[in-house]
Amino acid sequence: MEQKSSRLLQKLSRLRREHKELINLMPLQTGGMLTEAAKEALIEFGDGYSVCDFCEGTLCNVINPPIRDFVHELLPQFLGCEVATITHGAREAKFMVMHSLAKPGDSILVDANRHYTTVVAAERTGLNIIEVPNSGHPEFRVDVSEYVPLMEKHAPKLILLTYPDGNYGNLPDARRLGEIAQGHNIPYIINGAYAVGRMPISMDEIGADFIIGSGHKSMASTGPAGVLGMKKKWEETVLRRSGKYGKKEIELLGCTIRGVPLITLMASFPYVKERVQHWDEQVSKAQWFSAELEKLGFIQLGEKPHRHDLLHFDAPVLYEISKRVRERGYFLYKELKERGIWGPQPGMAKSFKLSTFAADRQQLESVIDSFKAILNKYS
Amino acid sequence: MEQKSSRLLQKLSRLRREHKELINLMPLQTGGMLTEAAKEALIEFGDGYSVCDFCEGTLCNVINPPIRDFVHELLPQFLGCEVATITHGAREAKFMVMHSLAKPGDSILVDANRHYTTVVAAERTGLNIIEVPNSGHPEFRVDVSEYVPLMEKHAPKLILLTYPDGNYGNLPDARRLGEIAQGHNIPYIINGAYAVGRMPISMDEIGADFIIGSGHKSMASTGPAGVLGMKKKWEETVLRRSGKYGKKEIELLGCTIRGVPLITLMASFPYVKERVQHWDEQVSKAQWFSAELEKLGFIQLGEKPHRHDLLHFDAPVLYEISKRVRERGYFLYKELKERGIWGPQPGMAKSFKLSTFAADRQQLESVIDSFKAILNKYS
Repeated sequence: MEQKSSRLLQKLSRLRREHKELINLMPLQTGGMLTEAAKEALIEFGDGYSVCDFCEGTLCNVINPPIRDFVHELLPQFLGCEVATITHGAREAKFMVMHSLAKPGDSILVDANRHYTTVVAAERTGLNIIEVPNSGHPEFRVDVSEYVPLMEKHAPKLILLTYPDGNYGNLPDARRLGEIAQGHNIPYIINGAYAVGRMPISMDEIGADFIIGSGHKSMASTGPAGVLGMKKKWEETVLRRSGKYGKKEIELLGCTIRGVPLITLMASFPYVKERVQHWDEQVSKAQWFSAELEKLGFIQLGEKPHRHDLLHFDAPVLYEISKRVRERGYFLYKELKERGIWGPQPGMAKSFKLSTFAADRQQLESVIDSFKAILNKYS
Repeated sequence: MEQKSSRLLQKLSRLRREHKELINLMPLQTGGMLTEAAKEALIEFGDGYSVCDFCEGTLCNVINPPIRDFVHELLPQFLGCEVATITHGAREAKFMVMHSLAKPGDSILVDANRHYTTVVAAERTGLNIIEVPNSGHPEFRVDVSEYVPLMEKHAPKLILLTYPDGNYGNLPDARRLGEIAQGHNIPYIINGAYAVGRMPISMDEIGADFIIGSGHKSMASTGPAGVLGMKKKWEETVLRRSGKYGKKEIELLGCTIRGVPLITLMASFPYVKERVQHWDEQVSKAQWFSAELEKLGFIQLGEKPHRHDLLHFDAPVLYEISKRVRERGYFLYKELKERGIWGPQPGMAKSFKLSTFAADRQQLESVIDSFKAILNKYS
């Protein structure tokens, strides 16, 4: 027992990351890689509670570092909303909104491609979850007009659309759902965890009531960090204050990311604001890469032509290999890692997900060549 | 508008902390200063979601980095509990427990010295808050026997004790309250945000049902980070899983600190585990420092002899000065900063709070000399 503890303690004193120098195609990670400014800020504000040096009671109103300007000026502009705040992440933002607007037993209508945390946040609130189906294999499209009959049948307190979803990178017609939601007077949440910080998006143009983004997924921030934008009319509901402590917002428990995640979110923001302007280049890069992988016998799932860097492929040819090698599904992870590439979930071979967001064309060419070499090796 | 935005963006690209090289006496910060191992880990795992490279569905079960060992082996030993998990911080842990064990309209009994977030977490859950009073100025002691009549009158679903409180650094008789809670069969939460990681503490020895700690306040971690320990019998209630996603705990929304705060918590842990063994030195240092400041005319509030590094002083002599200087209450902050010292909340002079935890005796001597010099300057 003593010996085991001391071995474990030793491991903790030197934590190293295996995947550091590799070409990163991991869908969860490609939008969350830090800028140099964020890395510097990480050390500068690493010590616990150092963002709170000049707090006068409300994190989002701190002037030094300039949190107030970031939250109250820059974020609303960026999100196309009237009021913004910061959260621990997209899932915590979803829970905040659900917990503020709905009661246990109420219903929420979500798309079938929703992230698992949408379901868990609804469970934590005690909501009935009704799903708008997708079109199934291979495109898994969500047709937003299918919200209408379900809205009329279940009278949900909230509707949510995942834009894009994390499984297929599909971009449903969010704007049309905005019109539908307004017509039915039902508050509408856009979960833009893979949109905000990658591509141009505006809550106002979509006609949603809430927009949610993820710092660690798509805003070049360390985790956990998120942003939540809303219409002014929801401010008093979602950002309602404590009866006893007038500066403290109840759903934020006073304050949320009181540490480095907020600092990296801020330090990377100028770069993130700029990079969304180049989204068309990201889309054409993803389309080119997808076409190249399809030439190797992989089948891209989700919408075609694809409009996002999140890509999901069926890979029957890899699956056949995995059945006859010692490492089973792990062979793909191992073979790619040996070639300096990190992306598909270790153990997966039947189908795999990649994101082309952080790699340039030259790196992606080396990825394509690596897939070719792996297929040759085992054929 | 454009010009203002561009000025704000420029500020974000170079975030610097003013208080970096100073002697740190800030009560919120002295227990959260990073170890060298944690600083290295910060850079290593800075990129968003890099702790999740080898996730198989549950953050607390990740093997590389060794989160599973940390959460399921080391933390329960350290906290003296059967089951542990990680949270965004102490306030989020309190909300998790309240939200799991109580319903809107239920009552919770807390000490009058509780942190404001205890109140806000209870408000978020919809609970009635009943407070056990303290003895008032100057000691503000909480006598735990006063829980008994209030427990009998209000039949609370939960009781909570702040150990120590953040205002006076008082350590009430937590163990006796453990006996009382068990006798009445009411679940008992110890909020040890200023204990866990500073001083030896064991949930089991206290006889509590839950123990809560704060990474950024007392475990040499960046924020936000917290720990929650509990009796095994509460695991299925507080860590209940999603009906749809069997690996995902509902109150954690699947997972909590998916990023560097967890990594710094782990990297600093061997040091933190060691430092609590030297708590007696911390207490004698605090007592000596308090006695020296009292010689200057400040009056230490809270328990005497004091048993914690959190110190609160009434300072009538500083208040008199603040009334006749241009900077008003800010003169103390300014004078100390010029002397390389950071601690009392800017603007406060009538009374101030300090923590002696991170400074050594030599540094504290220079603090005492600085107070003397400031008093001389204005006398």
